[in-house]
Amino acid sequence: MLDLRNVDRARLGNDGLDFASELNAHAAKLEAARDAVQARFASGTDAYLGWMALPQGDVLPEVLRIAERAQGRFDDVVVLGIGGSSLGGLTLVTALQHPYFNLLGRRSAARVHFVDNVDGDVITGLLEVLDPRRTLVNVISKSGTTTETMAAYLSCKAWLSGALGADYKDHIVATTDPEKGILRPLAQREGYETLPVPPTVGGRFSVFSAVGLLPAALGGIDVRALLNGAKRAHDVFAAPASDNDVLKLALVNHLFAERGRNINVFMPYSTRLRFLSDWFAQLWAESLGKHRRGDGERVGTTPVKAVGTTDQHSQVQLYREGPKDKIVTLVKVEQADRAATIPNAEPNEPEMSYLGHKPYQTLMNAELVATAHALAEAGQPNVTLTLPRVDAENLGFLMQLLMLQTAVNGELLNINAFDQPGVELGKVLTYALMGRPGFDERREELQKAGVEI
Amino acid sequence: MLDLRNVDRARLGNDGLDFASELNAHAAKLEAARDAVQARFASGTDAYLGWMALPQGDVLPEVLRIAERAQGRFDDVVVLGIGGSSLGGLTLVTALQHPYFNLLGRRSAARVHFVDNVDGDVITGLLEVLDPRRTLVNVISKSGTTTETMAAYLSCKAWLSGALGADYKDHIVATTDPEKGILRPLAQREGYETLPVPPTVGGRFSVFSAVGLLPAALGGIDVRALLNGAKRAHDVFAAPASDNDVLKLALVNHLFAERGRNINVFMPYSTRLRFLSDWFAQLWAESLGKHRRGDGERVGTTPVKAVGTTDQHSQVQLYREGPKDKIVTLVKVEQADRAATIPNAEPNEPEMSYLGHKPYQTLMNAELVATAHALAEAGQPNVTLTLPRVDAENLGFLMQLLMLQTAVNGELLNINAFDQPGVELGKVLTYALMGRPGFDERREELQKAGVEI
Repeated sequence: MLDLRNVDRARLGNDGLDFASELNAHAAKLEAARDAVQARFASGTDAYLGWMALPQGDVLPEVLRIAERAQGRFDDVVVLGIGGSSLGGLTLVTALQHPYFNLLGRRSAARVHFVDNVDGDVITGLLEVLDPRRTLVNVISKSGTTTETMAAYLSCKAWLSGALGADYKDHIVATTDPEKGILRPLAQREGYETLPVPPTVGGRFSVFSAVGLLPAALGGIDVRALLNGAKRAHDVFAAPASDNDVLKLALVNHLFAERGRNINVFMPYSTRLRFLSDWFAQLWAESLGKHRRGDGERVGTTPVKAVGTTDQHSQVQLYREGPKDKIVTLVKVEQADRAATIPNAEPNEPEMSYLGHKPYQTLMNAELVATAHALAEAGQPNVTLTLPRVDAENLGFLMQLLMLQTAVNGELLNINAFDQPGVELGKVLTYALMGRPGFDERREELQKAGVEI
Repeated sequence: MLDLRNVDRARLGNDGLDFASELNAHAAKLEAARDAVQARFASGTDAYLGWMALPQGDVLPEVLRIAERAQGRFDDVVVLGIGGSSLGGLTLVTALQHPYFNLLGRRSAARVHFVDNVDGDVITGLLEVLDPRRTLVNVISKSGTTTETMAAYLSCKAWLSGALGADYKDHIVATTDPEKGILRPLAQREGYETLPVPPTVGGRFSVFSAVGLLPAALGGIDVRALLNGAKRAHDVFAAPASDNDVLKLALVNHLFAERGRNINVFMPYSTRLRFLSDWFAQLWAESLGKHRRGDGERVGTTPVKAVGTTDQHSQVQLYREGPKDKIVTLVKVEQADRAATIPNAEPNEPEMSYLGHKPYQTLMNAELVATAHALAEAGQPNVTLTLPRVDAENLGFLMQLLMLQTAVNGELLNINAFDQPGVELGKVLTYALMGRPGFDERREELQKAGVEI
């Protein structure tokens, strides 16, 4: 499923790697990195690796219970969350529901709307098109102090209670830390249904916790199949380096980053996988953009979200003729769900008729292969990951594989891939500017510096 | 409207510029670049600068005539186009329609759906939710040979003619070159309504031609106001460098690229402007990712699409702690349309109640200011462009301003910002793989290299 021909010296000359010998040279180091991650996880005491246990599905019965209870009661679900509390669910629902699910006349599950910003026009615009009697709100925040999510929660609570009186509490499910934070006690006080975010699971690694599973289940996704796929990634992870796509991917990315390529393009050839790029961009950026342990050097390559074929008509000019500062990950889908073909509707037009009767997926994959080849020809290394099709199991597999890869890349970089100290200052300055009690000093500092809203 | 404090040495130390003296030193060069662009445009013979005339609105009567005729006849518009034939219209419609327009019960204009890929599941999924009797298809391709667009056209034609018989031709409008290419004669033969893409207007500069204006007008956008805004950008462009935001922006980007910052993040703080980032990414990448004239050096910085506040919880960790390889352009919106406030729905919860009764836009802009400050503190230069609000005039102004800036950056880099030779090989290889007549040699080449779909 991993095609590495377009990183190889055989294809790229000096811009490429002698991959076989690099893999050989780095096998022990890669396996040691993998083993270190596995051992920390197995110890059961690591503060960050809880996501590796999620495919086991401990929370599944709870998620399914809530989803079943919601079935038929709610037409719409509003998910309040930002970053890791939103992108996983958004990826799953966009990829696995009907591509125009929200416009279908008859629907077998709820429409799922993700509120991931504090854009008041958009939040009030959404509530305007929904019926509070038929809407469930899932507020997701590990700490309960995520400003953006809490602002949207306040709007939704006011909207629901204004329309439903005391019944509003049956329309809110809180997904949050099982003990800490302010959302858990608040939910208990209010009588909301709750689901846990395990303390050892960070937002960007939380897609297979209740964070991603409940929105997916409410949207009619087969969440069991997702977890089965995710489990399969661990089998790949356990293999020797010579036969381990996780470690190979990690190595390719690591070596090209060391050679100064600081841009990592992620480009699935599938409209339905467009938010997988967003999800991956957070996973990669927030995990690996760090001060390195010891010397404190600033490391991390920058993810660029793309979608094929669409971005061939937007980005590929730069990738071909611009600087050799990139590595590109393409995702290929072997089989479409519907096996649609292109009709031969202009048989007398030779510049179109060659497309007639061909499957769309053949055209999609011809473009992928052509682009991969054209990029390599221009000295831009690229790898292709192939999925048999876009379904829950394959998507579960791919997402867990990318999380495992990211963990290994963190080890190779000698950083903590699981924290995010760099976002703290922005939060604190926001509190100060918004007049939150306890941030007066910061507020004065900002005033002195002439910084105002 | 342009805040440059966070690029300055006063704020960033050695990571910053002494902007006042840089501007002084480069003023003549910047004005010469601007004057060169203006003179080529004024000559009337330049092959690429037709977009500078678009704000004058020559095509407006035609666009309005077609839109008025469509009014009430069509509930849905399907726009077939990719890259520059899609992103401009998508940006306008997403920013300026109601944020959940397609879910509104009563609509004053058509829903506009953009098909910009060859994902057969998505194309057939879209046609499944539409009524052919109430659907207008706008096929957009300058040459008429854009494979992706033509494949979708074949599907739509077959779908319309299957349902409507000979009446299908009243449901198709072709936007294409006035003379060249195959779509123009085909449309004439079929009897489709047509609109021109002027030969001197490239896709990524075509938003204010019929390419962007017709989808916008069909979606109920005030296209006159768009053009009025775009005109205003030319007033800014004409000013001396010391008072010219276009030239200042171009200079900032140019100088930081010269200092090795190869990543250009574009981050509007507005969900409604999310596709402006996609549009800008194409504009920037395809215009400036080039072989430089003379020495052939590969130039061009890589655009990264982002949305504030959302991506603070995804990318900002990397921007703060990762390498100093970026410059960030923030877009601030002063006033929301609805002036929504955050309800004080948890008055007894001090970690939430400080938000109560504050306008959402205040929170949005506090986060922008906080992030800008936090980035500068970490040695990442950033600029803020402010729009009074998200409306047609301001968006027209901003988009034209960014096109003018890109043209100047092309001059400063000594490249042709208006062609895209780098995408040719991928197209040719796709033709070969798809069995298009006339590409047999390429097909054999690929076979020998072991490249197949």
